[in-house]
Amino acid sequence: MAMTGVLRPGHAQLRVLNLEEGVRHYRDVLGMVETGRDAQGRVYLKCWDERDHNSLILRESDRAGIDFFAFKVLDEATLDKLERDLQEYGLTTERIPAGELMETGERVRFEIPSGHKIELYATKTQVGNGLQVTNPAPWTPAAEKGIAPVRLDHCLLYGPNIAEVKKLFCEVLGFYLVERVLGPDGEGEAAIWLSCSHKVHDIAFVEHPEPGKLHHLSFLLESWEEVLRAGDILAMNKVPIDIGPTRHGITRGCTIYAWDPSGNRFETFMGGYQPYPDYEPTTWTFDGLGEGGGLDYPQRKLHESFLTVVT
Amino acid sequence: MAMTGVLRPGHAQLRVLNLEEGVRHYRDVLGMVETGRDAQGRVYLKCWDERDHNSLILRESDRAGIDFFAFKVLDEATLDKLERDLQEYGLTTERIPAGELMETGERVRFEIPSGHKIELYATKTQVGNGLQVTNPAPWTPAAEKGIAPVRLDHCLLYGPNIAEVKKLFCEVLGFYLVERVLGPDGEGEAAIWLSCSHKVHDIAFVEHPEPGKLHHLSFLLESWEEVLRAGDILAMNKVPIDIGPTRHGITRGCTIYAWDPSGNRFETFMGGYQPYPDYEPTTWTFDGLGEGGGLDYPQRKLHESFLTVVT
Amino acid sequence: MAMTGVLRPGHAQLRVLNLEEGVRHYRDVLGMVETGRDAQGRVYLKCWDERDHNSLILRESDRAGIDFFAFKVLDEATLDKLERDLQEYGLTTERIPAGELMETGERVRFEIPSGHKIELYATKTQVGNGLQVTNPAPWTPAAEKGIAPVRLDHCLLYGPNIAEVKKLFCEVLGFYLVERVLGPDGEGEAAIWLSCSHKVHDIAFVEHPEPGKLHHLSFLLESWEEVLRAGDILAMNKVPIDIGPTRHGITRGCTIYAWDPSGNRFETFMGGYQPYPDYEPTTWTFDGLGEGGGLDYPQRKLHESFLTVVT
Amino acid sequence: MAMTGVLRPGHAQLRVLNLEEGVRHYRDVLGMVETGRDAQGRVYLKCWDERDHNSLILRESDRAGIDFFAFKVLDEATLDKLERDLQEYGLTTERIPAGELMETGERVRFEIPSGHKIELYATKTQVGNGLQVTNPAPWTPAAEKGIAPVRLDHCLLYGPNIAEVKKLFCEVLGFYLVERVLGPDGEGEAAIWLSCSHKVHDIAFVEHPEPGKLHHLSFLLESWEEVLRAGDILAMNKVPIDIGPTRHGITRGCTIYAWDPSGNRFETFMGGYQPYPDYEPTTWTFDGLGEGGGLDYPQRKLHESFLTVVT
Repeated sequence: MAMTGVLRPGHAQLRVLNLEEGVRHYRDVLGMVETGRDAQGRVYLKCWDERDHNSLILRESDRAGIDFFAFKVLDEATLDKLERDLQEYGLTTERIPAGELMETGERVRFEIPSGHKIELYATKTQVGNGLQVTNPAPWTPAAEKGIAPVRLDHCLLYGPNIAEVKKLFCEVLGFYLVERVLGPDGEGEAAIWLSCSHKVHDIAFVEHPEPGKLHHLSFLLESWEEVLRAGDILAMNKVPIDIGPTRHGITRGCTIYAWDPSGNRFETFMGGYQPYPDYEPTTWTFDGLGEGGGLDYPQRKLHESFLTVVT
Repeated sequence: MAMTGVLRPGHAQLRVLNLEEGVRHYRDVLGMVETGRDAQGRVYLKCWDERDHNSLILRESDRAGIDFFAFKVLDEATLDKLERDLQEYGLTTERIPAGELMETGERVRFEIPSGHKIELYATKTQVGNGLQVTNPAPWTPAAEKGIAPVRLDHCLLYGPNIAEVKKLFCEVLGFYLVERVLGPDGEGEAAIWLSCSHKVHDIAFVEHPEPGKLHHLSFLLESWEEVLRAGDILAMNKVPIDIGPTRHGITRGCTIYAWDPSGNRFETFMGGYQPYPDYEPTTWTFDGLGEGGGLDYPQRKLHESFLTVVT
Repeated sequence: MAMTGVLRPGHAQLRVLNLEEGVRHYRDVLGMVETGRDAQGRVYLKCWDERDHNSLILRESDRAGIDFFAFKVLDEATLDKLERDLQEYGLTTERIPAGELMETGERVRFEIPSGHKIELYATKTQVGNGLQVTNPAPWTPAAEKGIAPVRLDHCLLYGPNIAEVKKLFCEVLGFYLVERVLGPDGEGEAAIWLSCSHKVHDIAFVEHPEPGKLHHLSFLLESWEEVLRAGDILAMNKVPIDIGPTRHGITRGCTIYAWDPSGNRFETFMGGYQPYPDYEPTTWTFDGLGEGGGLDYPQRKLHESFLTVVT
Repeated sequence: MAMTGVLRPGHAQLRVLNLEEGVRHYRDVLGMVETGRDAQGRVYLKCWDERDHNSLILRESDRAGIDFFAFKVLDEATLDKLERDLQEYGLTTERIPAGELMETGERVRFEIPSGHKIELYATKTQVGNGLQVTNPAPWTPAAEKGIAPVRLDHCLLYGPNIAEVKKLFCEVLGFYLVERVLGPDGEGEAAIWLSCSHKVHDIAFVEHPEPGKLHHLSFLLESWEEVLRAGDILAMNKVPIDIGPTRHGITRGCTIYAWDPSGNRFETFMGGYQPYPDYEPTTWTFDGLGEGGGLDYPQRKLHESFLTVVT
């Protein structure tokens, strides 16, 4: 198969300070579909055009942030193989039983050197995207409830040791480096964008002293006009916006960053180009992140909060 | 690697009745970049955002149509392996020496049961997309010369035995079925859309008695507004349009079909969703192709020329 | 005042063969807001961003078509003056009492040489556009119910004597000619687009032997992406489309034409430039209407139905 | 005539610190067409889709800012009448001879209570928009050189006594109030948006102690996608951006503000609704300008520079 191994981001479990407030945000403002609640009280959501049962799990906690971020792999044999590969690479892996997350098969969990918990899984119940199976329409009314992104697209995580993280993702999990920001001294990498597909990012990391931090979960829109609409809807709901609407120089994506009621940053974005593993990675100097337009291409400046506020 | 094997469409060699007329069309109207001419007189072009040396080769002939369509594979080892796999599957393969096409490594060529010549190759000189390597801008002035698609995206080929073609692409080359149209009797497949990535199509086939026929080469735009602009530019240049602008029900793509001066159909399109190999294929009934909106979603009708005119 | 006299299209009374079917179409598919029903059984609707009580009145009849098309004028003094001007010009005018149409003041009605009934009025109750009066949001949820145009924009009427109609609109009502199509022999005008503002058309006429015919009522959208969405919604509701999505050469507008359940054509469109009365009118030859791209710029062809089907 | 009196903004004379630098900015980055230079060394430009000879005149000076802002009126009789009306209202008017500005007829100049010089004129040579006169295409290659707005749309001026300015524009020149921001104490108007058409603004004023100041000249784009492109082009040319891309709550317009090389602010924007003189003006509280989203709807905040930096 040409698409093998790790397919795509599958789910993220996010900690929110108040569950119902979080549900209202992700369901009514962001416009995800609530698909279930479990005995632990966790709430499951998916984007309208996702076919699997869930991509976002909200867990109430006294501390915001991310519990784990998971990738769907091709099949159970792939899951077994990647688990062995991770163990051979020296990582400790843990099997989470099927059903611990609703409608989700066994997961292989491991902690990466940046302090984040990553999961792999092969099975999640397909519930469909609400379109008829034969001769489908291109979208449903759910595509216009709230911001209504089509999918959970990627996340950006902050933590230490991202050189080791890159090595792990590239050598064991089959990712490749798409873009990177060099350190202030021109050496090392301060930030990396990694892909397991032809997306500009399936996951990204910024070097940061504190382990296990979440910078943002990102949700995909389909046009720049939908980004404008997202900004309107966020403002109508008084959701505080961090940056945007604007275009990133990095990845060329067009974006708005904002904060959920618990202070977790999320992104609604569109665009970017489509890289392949044979492409030379694009390099940004540290200055390029700011005045070079890496973060905010039109404004060509850094936004302090982008570098410092994480959960 | 998660993206392995066959990566993407790499090049197509197209026959045109008058070379300079063809060059004017693809370079000045479609807006591709001319990157070379060889001793045989063939002209090489690429889309502005493609990084490899060429994706379209024009060859003058007294008969329009396609000579071959090629896919880039991950590396030379992959090329060797896929060549062996094809041979084991029972196909005859031919090695075309490096350099036979400009700036292109060895190619493995084989004929598929629909009568088309398909090629695989691992190496083509990277000439870049005209952006600076460090801290790049999101686009260049070349992105606005002519219609200026970002890449050669896929092709649709007409020929017999597409059930066998599907088997070959899926079992040997790692593609998967994304969408299909059933035959008029509800049995068999009249048309198939195949992906080796998370694009809705890297190649597609329609069952047709004559072998080796080209329906269209397709070039990717980045927004519906660019499709409108493409229509304007085609009209300004009196390029005859077949269908569009409109949206396909199939793949959800938004499109214009038109004919080059030799009568080869080409498409400029944007959009569509992003499938993965774990998705259930979408099925269209034969009626669904017409009144179900498969071909022309707003108009919900067949266009006679779409089913009959090929080169 | 710089904007004086006739301000804009105000309302149209349309005949539908089945009232509830018509209401379902204009309210649920087109997405207008129902604002009232009167003792005669007529149904009143407005576009979400219109502030006056109604812009479309549906009347059940055994014959489709338009009863009258009305313009709002600046104030009652203007209404009186224009009534006198019309009478001095030689037309018979009729005063329709206030309240005959819901929430609408006195109307001055007259028949023009093409056989259409035109009305002027100065007063209609302002019901607002659903946004808060102070610190309003840019749009409301109603802006996404159905196609949801922002306003009734113009109409195109078919009938005889359009040279006389032009004279009347320009000399008495303060309109000016924006674009025109010459007759097949290069003489006379086969079609005229007239403006009382800086819109490309507030009303348009095509020379046609039968008097009093409606070609289409037109509703304004705000982007080309909304035209695509309109096409999707029409298809989802199996509304038959006449032409589009496409761009007109004439006016540069981007459009879809379709038919309501009674066979009345309507248009959802966006764009076009903004002319002023000091502009030279744009002239299209009769051939220019077809192969010159006047009607369908990308396709550069006539659509038979456009010239022949009216109600 | 329905469009009478003052038609639209016609020209602005802008002071730049270095003429060639200014020309490079407005011609090569903003993408206006240079149409002439006069004996005084002034440079004349127009937007591609404007038909009159010029809309922007650059004059080199040691001080940035605006010399005068002019409106085109319907004809010479209107000019004479408005001159008399202004004099009767108590203003001193000055006749500037035809030809003092290239290809421009006599101008009536007067100073308004905010300390700005305003001009009216009826005649400017029509040079066309570069499209063929018969059967025109919808745009020309000039529509894609630089940012390429379609027209000079409006200006925002800062100065004292805007209550008097409003009275003058509304009572003598036929404008009407479209939107306004109340003063911090909820009394008086801190800012007003005035229209002589169905644009959301033909001119706007902010109460400010220093007379005769320019906040920005504004140029019209046709889509939100063109606003994104404008931001890209500004960044590619290292033009410093003040605000945007974003949407205003006030007028609903979607915008980028930036500074020319002399520090004069300019805006490239699209959108907004279309008001008429019978509409109730929209009112913003002073807080509404900031946290109410009046200035920056998604961000719901004031930008300090917007309130303080003028030339």
